[in-house]
Amino acid sequence: SNPTMLSSRSLRVRSALIRQCMAEFLGTFVLLLFGLSAAAQVKTSRETKGQTLSIHLSWAMGVMSATYLTKGISGAHLNPAVSLSFCILGKLRWGQLLPYCVSQIFGAYVGAALVYLLYYDAIMEFSGGVLTVYGPNETASIFATYPSEYLPLGKGFLDQVVGTGMLLLCLLSLTEKRNTPAPPDLIAPIVAGIVLGIIMSMSANCGAALNPARDLGPRLLTLTAGWGTEVFTCYNYWFWVPIVAPIIGALTGTSLYLIFIEWQLPDEPQESHPKICSNWSDFTANISPVFSA
Amino acid sequence: SNPTMLSSRSLRVRSALIRQCMAEFLGTFVLLLFGLSAAAQVKTSRETKGQTLSIHLSWAMGVMSATYLTKGISGAHLNPAVSLSFCILGKLRWGQLLPYCVSQIFGAYVGAALVYLLYYDAIMEFSGGVLTVYGPNETASIFATYPSEYLPLGKGFLDQVVGTGMLLLCLLSLTEKRNTPAPPDLIAPIVAGIVLGIIMSMSANCGAALNPARDLGPRLLTLTAGWGTEVFTCYNYWFWVPIVAPIIGALTGTSLYLIFIEWQLPDEPQESHPKICSNWSDFTANISPVFSA
Amino acid sequence: SNPTMLSSRSLRVRSALIRQCMAEFLGTFVLLLFGLSAAAQVKTSRETKGQTLSIHLSWAMGVMSATYLTKGISGAHLNPAVSLSFCILGKLRWGQLLPYCVSQIFGAYVGAALVYLLYYDAIMEFSGGVLTVYGPNETASIFATYPSEYLPLGKGFLDQVVGTGMLLLCLLSLTEKRNTPAPPDLIAPIVAGIVLGIIMSMSANCGAALNPARDLGPRLLTLTAGWGTEVFTCYNYWFWVPIVAPIIGALTGTSLYLIFIEWQLPDEPQESHPKICSNWSDFTANISPVFSA
Amino acid sequence: SNPTMLSSRSLRVRSALIRQCMAEFLGTFVLLLFGLSAAAQVKTSRETKGQTLSIHLSWAMGVMSATYLTKGISGAHLNPAVSLSFCILGKLRWGQLLPYCVSQIFGAYVGAALVYLLYYDAIMEFSGGVLTVYGPNETASIFATYPSEYLPLGKGFLDQVVGTGMLLLCLLSLTEKRNTPAPPDLIAPIVAGIVLGIIMSMSANCGAALNPARDLGPRLLTLTAGWGTEVFTCYNYWFWVPIVAPIIGALTGTSLYLIFIEWQLPDEPQESHPKICSNWSDFTANISPVFSA
Repeated sequence: SNPTMLSSRSLRVRSALIRQCMAEFLGTFVLLLFGLSAAAQVKTSRETKGQTLSIHLSWAMGVMSATYLTKGISGAHLNPAVSLSFCILGKLRWGQLLPYCVSQIFGAYVGAALVYLLYYDAIMEFSGGVLTVYGPNETASIFATYPSEYLPLGKGFLDQVVGTGMLLLCLLSLTEKRNTPAPPDLIAPIVAGIVLGIIMSMSANCGAALNPARDLGPRLLTLTAGWGTEVFTCYNYWFWVPIVAPIIGALTGTSLYLIFIEWQLPDEPQESHPKICSNWSDFTANISPVFSA
Repeated sequence: SNPTMLSSRSLRVRSALIRQCMAEFLGTFVLLLFGLSAAAQVKTSRETKGQTLSIHLSWAMGVMSATYLTKGISGAHLNPAVSLSFCILGKLRWGQLLPYCVSQIFGAYVGAALVYLLYYDAIMEFSGGVLTVYGPNETASIFATYPSEYLPLGKGFLDQVVGTGMLLLCLLSLTEKRNTPAPPDLIAPIVAGIVLGIIMSMSANCGAALNPARDLGPRLLTLTAGWGTEVFTCYNYWFWVPIVAPIIGALTGTSLYLIFIEWQLPDEPQESHPKICSNWSDFTANISPVFSA
Repeated sequence: SNPTMLSSRSLRVRSALIRQCMAEFLGTFVLLLFGLSAAAQVKTSRETKGQTLSIHLSWAMGVMSATYLTKGISGAHLNPAVSLSFCILGKLRWGQLLPYCVSQIFGAYVGAALVYLLYYDAIMEFSGGVLTVYGPNETASIFATYPSEYLPLGKGFLDQVVGTGMLLLCLLSLTEKRNTPAPPDLIAPIVAGIVLGIIMSMSANCGAALNPARDLGPRLLTLTAGWGTEVFTCYNYWFWVPIVAPIIGALTGTSLYLIFIEWQLPDEPQESHPKICSNWSDFTANISPVFSA
Repeated sequence: SNPTMLSSRSLRVRSALIRQCMAEFLGTFVLLLFGLSAAAQVKTSRETKGQTLSIHLSWAMGVMSATYLTKGISGAHLNPAVSLSFCILGKLRWGQLLPYCVSQIFGAYVGAALVYLLYYDAIMEFSGGVLTVYGPNETASIFATYPSEYLPLGKGFLDQVVGTGMLLLCLLSLTEKRNTPAPPDLIAPIVAGIVLGIIMSMSANCGAALNPARDLGPRLLTLTAGWGTEVFTCYNYWFWVPIVAPIIGALTGTSLYLIFIEWQLPDEPQESHPKICSNWSDFTANISPVFSA
């Protein structure tokens, strides 16, 4: 009855890994298109068509949209730091890691390129035609992240470790059946809320990349689109921090999660932990025969 | 016991198509009433009773409300570009397309007319009684979308293709059982979130119409209500862009969705894709006997 | 095992109507406490501790909280206009109407009184100790709604008819099984979203009361707390508009809902309407044996 | 198949109480990291990287994240006032109360310390290197709460009683099966919404601590990190108010909840209360055989 679905088997790419890479590419592309476009809209309109909060909310809506789009195919990592953590937790095979990361960085690059194309005229209008990394008319920060003037490099590194650590710590708790997990079909907006919280609270120092692909892809775009090598050399070669620190942060957050939560949970869902709420427990008791049928 | 429900059969309009057109009319009317009123409120109060973000959030709440209102009768397209995509995907019959589109444009016109009536005094106060398309006291942009001064026509076309493409790409993934779909009864607020993200990030260039009815209906209203033919002739006959480009965009987004997602999904729900998350899979395994009972 | 629950039967008020009135009183009290406090916070801090959007969001969170609090006892009307509509629809007995309305107005008065007490010092600081209805230091609009200077009385009446009409139209669609209803346990936040949308888009003219109790209760408080009779006489005896117009609006919205939606829905849930989305339908087909078991 | 889960039993801390304290420590740490970082971001950037609403939203996202993280182990109290109320309601043993509170305060202290470390350079830049409690460059209010100049001590006490009372009143209604409870797996975001509403509307007077641990932990940090004893002595020894008043408020809110709601609810879920909505009841009737199977 639905020709689209019937024909899908013959049109499907043979290799599961390529299908997953296509999904990670598209998902990261969508994520970056939402986030960077919002940054371009707010900056080039000099905050007349949005404000800082609009940018933060756009990243969150990008996370939600890209997650629904790709979760069923690739798991919606959209972030090399997440993929690495999932390898360590045994949720992704090590052989998938590099292809995933390359797809994510490529998706981020193409997303940034489309934002550049869409906002080319606005950027030229705003910057007077000079694409720079410094000064009141700089536009490089629409794409990649840069530290505040006052920030020492080491503190920027710590900032990204903490931010990405928070992301993984909070994200991993959402699917654990023995905890009180989020509804599986609402993980996407809840992760979006966590990302929103982190960006609203930890982007003042150095922009909350939280994701090597989200930062490297657009930085490569600005390198090739006219901002010059300064995007890599500026602020004492800052560019490697949002690549390396989120990875360390993801491992830190994952460890914290295992030590404080995962290993401390009861064996069975909702069993040996204290009766915090009788009604909650009653609900569980009523519903469990259905779920274990 | 409920007299309203018992009597409904006799009061129902015979033709299913007319019932659907009534729903599309009412839904687009509600959508426009939320969105345009917010634009009028923020502009005429000179941002003292709201800000740009209020307008963006109002469009989102309009999408949510209109979707709950009409999904059970007409499918809540509310947008000719969506209706066209659904025809191509076999989810709407081609014979329904024109009646749907006419109802949507008519609903948009009537919604805009009510906003004009409600905010007539505020618009007169704000504009000094002169209804114009240009200048600091222009009020035409409360209703239809206009490009920024710096924007070439072709770039505006691309902007609307990309924005509407994103909308369809993200929207289509929400109901696919073989992916990780959104809860069917929460599609409305999730689509609202996607629309919010697109408007916050892609409305700087030319206002994010994303919908031919949303733009043409109010433009016709301003034509007939005193803004004159300039609403159609200004910016080098801009008016056709937010009619044609969203349609091209919807087709592009639908194609991207088919190529990258729909055709790449496993045959059965949640089967052959990688075990991204053991708890998620366990959950599915536990719950499936209930759903297939 | 839970002494609170065991003892509840003996502590319960005998009369169901009094229990319901207690709930409506408490719910309206909570709603007003959220909304009016936010208005007081933003105004007296001269927008340094919040902005217009904070006030709008607070009303929404108040709706959500008060609905969860009281839905199981009284139905969480919190609004005489809603109670009247529910009487007409056969969802509330006519004998309950007056007690419900009195409880709502009394809850609104007590909520406003607590806000007055909490923000007394802030209001005195802001207004220089003079409680007025007019001028840049007026504080009456923290409590009740007043029209903009430019607004004719009739237009204010229409504004409140349209706003409250939208509220009822959208609200009634959320629980109809034959439509695509919202999840019963998430009605509260979804109604909050609808209210947010209406306040963000239709409060510029005259403050979006949408609710006779929400307006009359605080107005009576300001009358008795020092603002004088001007709160009733100002703007050509404006006070009756936010009492009468929401009632007319609720009836209008309810009628629109019946004509366009309720009477046009198929007899059985999700049956004769067009197959808008095959996956959605499949989902329904799969899940229905469980629900009708 | 999942080595992480298999090994968890041997890695688990033996004492259930220590596991719970670890969870309360981590949860309060996460909550404070979100909230205080946002306050630091907005203040030190002089509102260029966020605004008051960002701070309020960050607290809400912190509540959501910390609740999902710890609910399955400790019940996610994150607040001594909540723990005390739950003791009184029989949902927590009295012997657990002190360890819970100490863990919460310690988590808040460590969270504040990390925020101090992350934003050290920004705080020095903003304040010119002088850490003070008073004046335009004060930074103490990033961490603990302080009253407005105009506020008498008693009014600050009342403010915190009312705010925390609202929190408990609304929170307790979410899990009661005989009311219309929130979905158990969405309690976290809904509580976040309630907290958001309270902070947006009741933080103008004295900062909406609502939680003795949230206030005392960061205040101790500022004492030890260079702000001096003034953080305790200022405003006439204000510091004890956000410790004591939230506890009184929690007891008040709990009492209100019992009197107005808990004791007035019907014996069985959804039974003797008025048929507010026939569809809602039908839904309950249909679904109940599944849940009681």
